[in-house]
Amino acid sequence: MMRVGQVIKVRPEQEEKYKELHAAVWPDVAKMITECNIRNYSIFLRDHYLFSYFEYIGDDYEADMAKMAADPVTQDWWAVCKPCQQPVDSHTESEWWADMEEVFHQD
Amino acid sequence: MMRVGQVIKVRPEQEEKYKELHAAVWPDVAKMITECNIRNYSIFLRDHYLFSYFEYIGDDYEADMAKMAADPVTQDWWAVCKPCQQPVDSHTESEWWADMEEVFHQD
Repeated sequence: MMRVGQVIKVRPEQEEKYKELHAAVWPDVAKMITECNIRNYSIFLRDHYLFSYFEYIGDDYEADMAKMAADPVTQDWWAVCKPCQQPVDSHTESEWWADMEEVFHQD
Repeated sequence: MMRVGQVIKVRPEQEEKYKELHAAVWPDVAKMITECNIRNYSIFLRDHYLFSYFEYIGDDYEADMAKMAADPVTQDWWAVCKPCQQPVDSHTESEWWADMEEVFHQD
């Protein structure tokens, strides 16, 4: 199992909308998350920073992320969510959510 | 089980020291974390922000956090770690790590 931590900013004026969207994620989006081997997925908010944590239980993370990105319903969901978000300044060209480095873990 | 997400900044000049410390957490500190009913505890780093995620499996979070804070070895550990950290501007008087709001979760 691989743990993933990621960070992005939420646009202050879109924060409530982002929260409302994530209080009722579309069922087909949730289903695709599960199909792509993501488990125990949480998003936390403070000071317009969003921090996500999830666990990947598959054996080909790149392929599963590509599968998710190719899903039409997920694309529609992202089209609604992305205007609420702003990548951190240091994000790379391939990043939306920016990967964080795990510096500590204890089971 | 309660999920906890928290954020704090790491002082840029202390970042490497912080990482080194957390690559080899003192055994008695790790033991106290377990005794205080914390599980699946990760800390992630990006852009001098530290995000922590853990799961609390006890039934009295305040009491367990007070127990940890009263532990002499944990106090020594914090005395080494805290100079590496800087609370976020919005932190309250009682916060060091600042609590985040969970805005999404999917098992």
